[in-house]
Amino acid sequence: MADTRDDLVVGKSIQRIALVLEFDGSPYSGWQKQGADDLTVQQSVEIALTRVDGAPISTQAAGRTDAGVHAEALLVHCDVDAARWARSPKAYLFGVNQYLPESIRVVAAREVSAAFHARFDCLERAYRYQIWNRPIAPSIERWRHWWMPRKLDLSAMQQAAGFLLGEHDFSAFRATDCQSKTAMRDLRQVEISREGFTINISFRANAFLYHMVRNMVGTLVEVGVGKRLPDTIRPLMEGCDRRVAGATAPAHGLYFTNAVYEGFSSAALRESAGVLTGG
Amino acid sequence: MADTRDDLVVGKSIQRIALVLEFDGSPYSGWQKQGADDLTVQQSVEIALTRVDGAPISTQAAGRTDAGVHAEALLVHCDVDAARWARSPKAYLFGVNQYLPESIRVVAAREVSAAFHARFDCLERAYRYQIWNRPIAPSIERWRHWWMPRKLDLSAMQQAAGFLLGEHDFSAFRATDCQSKTAMRDLRQVEISREGFTINISFRANAFLYHMVRNMVGTLVEVGVGKRLPDTIRPLMEGCDRRVAGATAPAHGLYFTNAVYEGFSSAALRESAGVLTGG
Repeated sequence: MADTRDDLVVGKSIQRIALVLEFDGSPYSGWQKQGADDLTVQQSVEIALTRVDGAPISTQAAGRTDAGVHAEALLVHCDVDAARWARSPKAYLFGVNQYLPESIRVVAAREVSAAFHARFDCLERAYRYQIWNRPIAPSIERWRHWWMPRKLDLSAMQQAAGFLLGEHDFSAFRATDCQSKTAMRDLRQVEISREGFTINISFRANAFLYHMVRNMVGTLVEVGVGKRLPDTIRPLMEGCDRRVAGATAPAHGLYFTNAVYEGFSSAALRESAGVLTGG
Repeated sequence: MADTRDDLVVGKSIQRIALVLEFDGSPYSGWQKQGADDLTVQQSVEIALTRVDGAPISTQAAGRTDAGVHAEALLVHCDVDAARWARSPKAYLFGVNQYLPESIRVVAAREVSAAFHARFDCLERAYRYQIWNRPIAPSIERWRHWWMPRKLDLSAMQQAAGFLLGEHDFSAFRATDCQSKTAMRDLRQVEISREGFTINISFRANAFLYHMVRNMVGTLVEVGVGKRLPDTIRPLMEGCDRRVAGATAPAHGLYFTNAVYEGFSSAALRESAGVLTGG
């Protein structure tokens, strides 16, 4: 038998695992692997996994984050050497973290079936957007929030958000180069709250279109400063015209916070901060 | 009359103002001006003030923060050109912020009497220390917390903190090169709370010795991991021997949060995020 990559894989027992990633997106050109000159989270994670595993590992994520977007709990799956994994899942992950840059951490993991897919099996995604709302720019929190010096009217924003909820065509909020076949999405929650100078806007949906969260945030902020009335959101949605919605909010205020699956979620795994085997 | 610095000052009307500074301490060798090779917060602030004011400005702070320590609301005073200030305090501060690096912001200000002194008139200081308590290191929050992988026993730490409260000789917690004449300090509050992976420890005292907060945190964490019993803190205090207390906690978890004066405080000024004149 020739010593090719395929032979090696065939000759090994494989375990599919799901990893929960937390990362500071500032230094990266987003999640997805691109040209050799771009530093991406996926590439960094695959290099670390490959070093520990001994064979080339590729990953699939619940969603692709843009350049500069952060993650508290992005779920990815990959196939690892079952024997090496089984010897000590904790040591395996410790090794991966050792090879990762400080800005990326695997914070939890669990075994999944060989048929599991991080993207196709994901039932719901959640994002949080953070705005720093005061006249003076943030110093300590400058890479973690979008700075909005004008006072935002939260109740107007809440009212506008009500029109976004439910199953709709979200074409008005999709980027022009979005490649999804359909713009139908089910937006299940938009929650807006203030804590100190921070305004948090949390979103839950079955899935999101490219730039959809950032475009919704840009539009809600225009409502918050009085540039748009809350009830203009309904005709905006119905018009399905991206040019009518607000500007895209910057990437550095956005956090991927949860991916929900049958029986588990990335946020709950992160809370447990552990390794589950035999899942 | 010769055109000297003193003559210029005499020839001008001066307004003493108090500024509230928020800064990310990571890039700085602490607050205090040092040799030309060290980048300090004080130096950066004085350069920005001088550029706006047109005459050399020097500053006095409520306390000196160490290298790497952050501030949410450090209070400093300085004397500015009364005419320039009075024309528009907002424009004056806008100018100062324009000349400051992004990591430092003047977030509020007020006029004070010519006799006011940021350090000598300060009635109480407050600090917060942030610990990231989970097995895996923080990624997004890596410069903002001290990472403690072992689970901390908060009730043991609370119990230990009780022995620190009150007016005592804090020699056991002062750095060997601390230059204070007395080690007597009145520690009025130690509050420990958990929020997600973060443990916040808040301290209030009339004043703190050099490294006192970081040495108390290092000692409390040793109690939290079971290396010390809570009731060993009383004899430790009484012994006044720095070598018996715990290690100094790292600077990057520490935040200067408040300086209290007769009639106002830096934290309240920051909350108002404005400029008060005629105070």
